[in-house]
Amino acid sequence: MYTLYSMQRSGNCYKVRLLLAQLHIPYRLVEVDILRGETRTPEFLAMNPNGRVPLLEVAPGRYLAESNAILWYVGSGTPLAPDDRIERAEALQWMFFEQHSLEPHLGAARFWLTMVKGGRELQRHALEEWMEHGYRALGVMEQHLATHDFFVAGRYTIADIALYAYTHVAHESDFDLTGFPAIRAWLKRVVEQPGYIGIDHRTQSMAIAE
Amino acid sequence: MYTLYSMQRSGNCYKVRLLLAQLHIPYRLVEVDILRGETRTPEFLAMNPNGRVPLLEVAPGRYLAESNAILWYVGSGTPLAPDDRIERAEALQWMFFEQHSLEPHLGAARFWLTMVKGGRELQRHALEEWMEHGYRALGVMEQHLATHDFFVAGRYTIADIALYAYTHVAHESDFDLTGFPAIRAWLKRVVEQPGYIGIDHRTQSMAIAE
Repeated sequence: MYTLYSMQRSGNCYKVRLLLAQLHIPYRLVEVDILRGETRTPEFLAMNPNGRVPLLEVAPGRYLAESNAILWYVGSGTPLAPDDRIERAEALQWMFFEQHSLEPHLGAARFWLTMVKGGRELQRHALEEWMEHGYRALGVMEQHLATHDFFVAGRYTIADIALYAYTHVAHESDFDLTGFPAIRAWLKRVVEQPGYIGIDHRTQSMAIAE
Repeated sequence: MYTLYSMQRSGNCYKVRLLLAQLHIPYRLVEVDILRGETRTPEFLAMNPNGRVPLLEVAPGRYLAESNAILWYVGSGTPLAPDDRIERAEALQWMFFEQHSLEPHLGAARFWLTMVKGGRELQRHALEEWMEHGYRALGVMEQHLATHDFFVAGRYTIADIALYAYTHVAHESDFDLTGFPAIRAWLKRVVEQPGYIGIDHRTQSMAIAE
């Protein structure tokens, strides 16, 4: 059974919890609080030298990091992970876009605005840049979704999961999606997928978490 | 035949040129100057709404963006792209690490220090952060390479290509690799790979570039 090291509020961790729920894969959940430095302990760094969650133990003592790499591993062999050469590459394109052009801005804004007291003042200058770059990335997504129901392969895939995680909570970091009707319609389509859980969903196995 | 839209000095574009050279795949090269706004023209944005290079035309009118997604597409079916489930995921892990923890810092520092006149003064505050995060990422790589010849699967793969691109020019953006002996030994092993070309290598097909 997988063990997932995860922080409940993290969008990157939510991606993995959502996919595991939709594939009905049982797992053991270990809640980790990055605000308390729990990803910087010697024990955690021995599992992931980069000191981040999510982290998935895929076999005893073998750990996989990076949310989108975990999505590929867990989704492998299911319709949610495109296997065709060009569709796989296009899914990867959107997932690298997510980690390079979207998450660093929406994720950073959300972290400082919702998890750090006084974050708005501390990061006032950075916030302007995160908003500018975040809106630019949302514009790229809006343009694509204006003519596509999902990002790749004409169906719901792990590329949608990756992009959904921070986009659906964009309002928490002051982003206004009013001017992005195609994104708003796509967010609804994601919610309608079988096995969907929200970011606040508490996984039952949390009861056995350390 | 592929058409690659590329900027010669870009580390992300170099990744693709290096892989194409090592696989002996001919292609048409179109040199694009981002400093002259050539990725922001209506014509270019019609090919890649995110306005970035590298961009690979994989079939007439079908374009693939994001350097690491292109590496997977081009390398597909060759020993350079791991096909085993866990090795593929581990390669992806390192490639997402590269785009999230390494390239944004080493790449940004290199851009402002080597391509923008007065960039050091303009970005003085940001540079401090890029250096701090860049060194942290290099530390994670050093730790891994202290016990591994290559990043994944015990052999040279596209994960090495992705990580090599900005690491081997780290000195151009003031990073000092003296304290990273395992990285320096790995850089030498990459240079020894069959078909290796340097970032300054001029592809012959450039003669027919637009």
